[in-house]
Amino acid sequence: MKRVKVAIIMGSKSDSPTMQESSKILDEFNVAYDMRVLSAHRTPSATIEFARNVEAKGFKVIIAGAGAAAALAGVIAAHTTLPVIGVPIETKSLKGLDSLLSTVQMPSGVPVACVAIGRTGAKNAAILAIEILSLTNIKLKKKLIRYRKSFSKAIKKTKI
Amino acid sequence: MKRVKVAIIMGSKSDSPTMQESSKILDEFNVAYDMRVLSAHRTPSATIEFARNVEAKGFKVIIAGAGAAAALAGVIAAHTTLPVIGVPIETKSLKGLDSLLSTVQMPSGVPVACVAIGRTGAKNAAILAIEILSLTNIKLKKKLIRYRKSFSKAIKKTKI
Amino acid sequence: MKRVKVAIIMGSKSDSPTMQESSKILDEFNVAYDMRVLSAHRTPSATIEFARNVEAKGFKVIIAGAGAAAALAGVIAAHTTLPVIGVPIETKSLKGLDSLLSTVQMPSGVPVACVAIGRTGAKNAAILAIEILSLTNIKLKKKLIRYRKSFSKAIKKTKI
Amino acid sequence: MKRVKVAIIMGSKSDSPTMQESSKILDEFNVAYDMRVLSAHRTPSATIEFARNVEAKGFKVIIAGAGAAAALAGVIAAHTTLPVIGVPIETKSLKGLDSLLSTVQMPSGVPVACVAIGRTGAKNAAILAIEILSLTNIKLKKKLIRYRKSFSKAIKKTKI
Amino acid sequence: MKRVKVAIIMGSKSDSPTMQESSKILDEFNVAYDMRVLSAHRTPSATIEFARNVEAKGFKVIIAGAGAAAALAGVIAAHTTLPVIGVPIETKSLKGLDSLLSTVQMPSGVPVACVAIGRTGAKNAAILAIEILSLTNIKLKKKLIRYRKSFSKAIKKTKI
Amino acid sequence: MKRVKVAIIMGSKSDSPTMQESSKILDEFNVAYDMRVLSAHRTPSATIEFARNVEAKGFKVIIAGAGAAAALAGVIAAHTTLPVIGVPIETKSLKGLDSLLSTVQMPSGVPVACVAIGRTGAKNAAILAIEILSLTNIKLKKKLIRYRKSFSKAIKKTKI
Amino acid sequence: MKRVKVAIIMGSKSDSPTMQESSKILDEFNVAYDMRVLSAHRTPSATIEFARNVEAKGFKVIIAGAGAAAALAGVIAAHTTLPVIGVPIETKSLKGLDSLLSTVQMPSGVPVACVAIGRTGAKNAAILAIEILSLTNIKLKKKLIRYRKSFSKAIKKTKI
Amino acid sequence: MKRVKVAIIMGSKSDSPTMQESSKILDEFNVAYDMRVLSAHRTPSATIEFARNVEAKGFKVIIAGAGAAAALAGVIAAHTTLPVIGVPIETKSLKGLDSLLSTVQMPSGVPVACVAIGRTGAKNAAILAIEILSLTNIKLKKKLIRYRKSFSKAIKKTKI
Repeated sequence: MKRVKVAIIMGSKSDSPTMQESSKILDEFNVAYDMRVLSAHRTPSATIEFARNVEAKGFKVIIAGAGAAAALAGVIAAHTTLPVIGVPIETKSLKGLDSLLSTVQMPSGVPVACVAIGRTGAKNAAILAIEILSLTNIKLKKKLIRYRKSFSKAIKKTKI
Repeated sequence: MKRVKVAIIMGSKSDSPTMQESSKILDEFNVAYDMRVLSAHRTPSATIEFARNVEAKGFKVIIAGAGAAAALAGVIAAHTTLPVIGVPIETKSLKGLDSLLSTVQMPSGVPVACVAIGRTGAKNAAILAIEILSLTNIKLKKKLIRYRKSFSKAIKKTKI
Repeated sequence: MKRVKVAIIMGSKSDSPTMQESSKILDEFNVAYDMRVLSAHRTPSATIEFARNVEAKGFKVIIAGAGAAAALAGVIAAHTTLPVIGVPIETKSLKGLDSLLSTVQMPSGVPVACVAIGRTGAKNAAILAIEILSLTNIKLKKKLIRYRKSFSKAIKKTKI
Repeated sequence: MKRVKVAIIMGSKSDSPTMQESSKILDEFNVAYDMRVLSAHRTPSATIEFARNVEAKGFKVIIAGAGAAAALAGVIAAHTTLPVIGVPIETKSLKGLDSLLSTVQMPSGVPVACVAIGRTGAKNAAILAIEILSLTNIKLKKKLIRYRKSFSKAIKKTKI
Repeated sequence: MKRVKVAIIMGSKSDSPTMQESSKILDEFNVAYDMRVLSAHRTPSATIEFARNVEAKGFKVIIAGAGAAAALAGVIAAHTTLPVIGVPIETKSLKGLDSLLSTVQMPSGVPVACVAIGRTGAKNAAILAIEILSLTNIKLKKKLIRYRKSFSKAIKKTKI
Repeated sequence: MKRVKVAIIMGSKSDSPTMQESSKILDEFNVAYDMRVLSAHRTPSATIEFARNVEAKGFKVIIAGAGAAAALAGVIAAHTTLPVIGVPIETKSLKGLDSLLSTVQMPSGVPVACVAIGRTGAKNAAILAIEILSLTNIKLKKKLIRYRKSFSKAIKKTKI
Repeated sequence: MKRVKVAIIMGSKSDSPTMQESSKILDEFNVAYDMRVLSAHRTPSATIEFARNVEAKGFKVIIAGAGAAAALAGVIAAHTTLPVIGVPIETKSLKGLDSLLSTVQMPSGVPVACVAIGRTGAKNAAILAIEILSLTNIKLKKKLIRYRKSFSKAIKKTKI
Repeated sequence: MKRVKVAIIMGSKSDSPTMQESSKILDEFNVAYDMRVLSAHRTPSATIEFARNVEAKGFKVIIAGAGAAAALAGVIAAHTTLPVIGVPIETKSLKGLDSLLSTVQMPSGVPVACVAIGRTGAKNAAILAIEILSLTNIKLKKKLIRYRKSFSKAIKKTKI
């Protein structure tokens, strides 16, 4: 798994603590990734250029985290036919409800695969990416099944 | 007022009955405009091209109506320093709350001037555009003041 | 593309008009699918049996539509490592906000790829499934690119 | 009251401080209970096995606490005809609104008895369980009446 | 109907079409019930009198449907230690969100078992009542299991 | 406190810091009041007794603060024809939205005069009570006008 | 009761069907009123003039109905120390949630007595006004008590 | 740019930390401004006087920040035909959702240009004002373009 497979992008440096939940999972699964800040609103040209070339560069899945009027995942999706996973970042005032609706309510023809708000969503975005990649990667599939079993086992042993 | 001043764009043909509230007001004030469908998600390249050239073509204000994950106004705003007025279109399930949050909650550095959800918002978007244009157009300012007075008078005469 | 690739399930027969937006897209792309009613709450054993065997039967992606306390997509996801796409069905009282939150807010470890509420979401679920399948199917990828271009073109020609 | 009567389950160890409000009440009323972590999404097989056998093991009422896409109470209810009481756990971003809607909006045929969000709900879940058990347990009914009177009295004496 | 078991009350005659979903289920299970209009706000004395005497009259479970500032279930619960099931009636403006929060968010010590908004909730309220009654009624328990199996079977046969 | 005029009640001792905003204003205006804890759900009989006798005891206006399924103001209003002012107390999970809807959405025939959520509401409840009392108390009216002028003046002098 | 006591104002002629619920009640109680359209935003000077003179003209209570960014009740309250009752008018997109929050969430010092959204609220606004007026009008008080008893009786007789 | 161009007003001194995000931007662009506290509800006459004279004093754009039942921007807009930009201040209980709806949902004829909730909105309000002023000020336009480029560059260099 040397070749880069997953792109993790986020709208602002302040989204980094959330989005590192994605990269930690990919590290754990030994899936290569690139991670960078790209804003649909503040670096639009760089974002579009990224989106137009992301497939040619060998990426297979894109994870995009953004908050508030979270256009990032949707704008990337508009320029590529790769699966785009959107992570709604929690916001100060509306607690991520704005991010969620901006990410999930995509118009007909251009889907975004939206996951939960915040860190849980960022972690699950990486697992979803692995589910997609493991459709054609038996080694990754096996790791994924082991991962599932291992946390399931851990929960079953929980004492309260 | 022969030169085109205002661009009215909308994310889908189905937004047209709403956005015609904008064009009707501009017609009433004899302000020239262009009106077309452009989607941040479904015609992204055309949208960006439009946004990058809109100022050079002599437009002064942009009115952008979109629904659901309403990225249109924000994406236009990302590519121009002209004032962009966003109209959140009413949606079937969430009644425009999604459109409103996607339009108004813009990140630091790239404002959208958001108005009310639906037809009232579309109408007010045009009036806001006229308020902006009339800062340097005394004739338009006078019309605007007359318009205000005339509906004020009409309301005062209302019998119930 | 003879072998069945996509499973479309829904929590109730009344979800069928919504979920046919998924099947229509898959028909258009000539992607085989199975479509049936399975309820996390009302046919739980059949649902679990389905989820446990779905991968062995050759399915690659599951689309699950459900409304209100919409547990279906999550329950399927709990029993398989295939990508599960959740479609929040619009509801009478809360308009699908309940379906959306029940579908998207999955806990750490078990993602659901949530799309928009209602028919738009159902349609996009199918396109997302095709995006995933076309990662390793060049013919499908080409169709997808043509599909995107064709609706983009149609929108650009829209007269209003 | 030696025989175990009430099962308290929760989706995650982090729900434990909330759900101990249930166990404290049951302790106070000397009602036996079992308490454990079971996740509809992360330990689905253990959850189903639990639900299928819970009645045979002599339990009478189940209290299930879960947060976010809170499927736990509903999934248990799907496999048993015992009364299931759902406690929506407060969440970080949406403050338990997601948990509430996922717990209460159950489909036709499979009810969950939902109580308030968070600790108050957990406490009341136990009292509701006692109300149900005391329908056929005169000793428990008397304790319940005394309990009501005692807090009522305490409130009446409150000085402010 | 020799031994009346369940009381169905509602805040207004206009709640009757919703609450008849409760009575239809009880009829189907041959469980006796009384059904009447009682308002926490508009017939408060009659409501309190009802609540204070409901247990002595042999009722075992109370189903209370109310809309908007839906105090009915809570006020009944304040005067009895019988289990009270609350049905949030759908409202015109806020679609039952007001009814839901007013019914479910009960304070510490006085639980209401809240079910889904509207007709589905009313139906499930009756099933929940039967689940409670069947804890000590083996014949009712058997009917309940048959009922579950029969709708489960019907769903499994659904053609779409 | 020769002529008690206003009753301040609250559902729980924990509402006291909020409701003291009411008493502080009444102190400032030298309006006599009684303040006590009464719960619609936890001390229902005392609450009803209070409501039935409040007018005979010479009270003119009732201020009732309660949180969550905030039935207090409505239950009081059900038993008296005195004006009842409801203060929705801020709650931990839903931030007072539940309290607000439970207080304001009263059914036809039994109004509650609802003010803002939390401390601001509690303060304004007292001012509203004074507005009502000053309809027939010229001295109080003069104080009220001075009070208004004084804070208005203070704001106008604000330096920022 | 010949002298005009209550002013009913509304932000738009379209609010008239709602606000006639207020006037019908006042007619029923033989309380004199004036009813007119005044908009905080569209006839601001007339609104302020009205508010400044309303007390001198002998009015005792003001009922103000407005929708969306419903500033009317608050703006009136800013210019008078008479009690102002706000009726949040139901809106097309947000169903009156906007009207409710704009009406009830008044800042410290300037209360509005907010009632329920829509027709129920308009009716209750009139009853609240009567409750206030009947503090010093024994005849009106008696009518009010009769009115309460009569609808209470009617509800008790309801057959379902 | 010596002449004062922009007026920044806010409903309360406590809004000052938020609204200083506006003044900091105007300072950075060397745009003159006046900043003061004016309340639609607590200093209504001063507010109206301000609004009626603001254009004659040479102001071109007004930025108005207010929270809760945020009538300030709308009331200013009612008295002037200058563009009014509304900043919804974040509130304690409803997190600014009340401020947002009160600011953005303006009625037909009187627009407010609403920006995001809180500090981001305050900052963007100033940038929007600059966008409007720079329509006829080439020097300001150049600064604005440089400003955009500079933060865009900074984001592109972000390391994570």
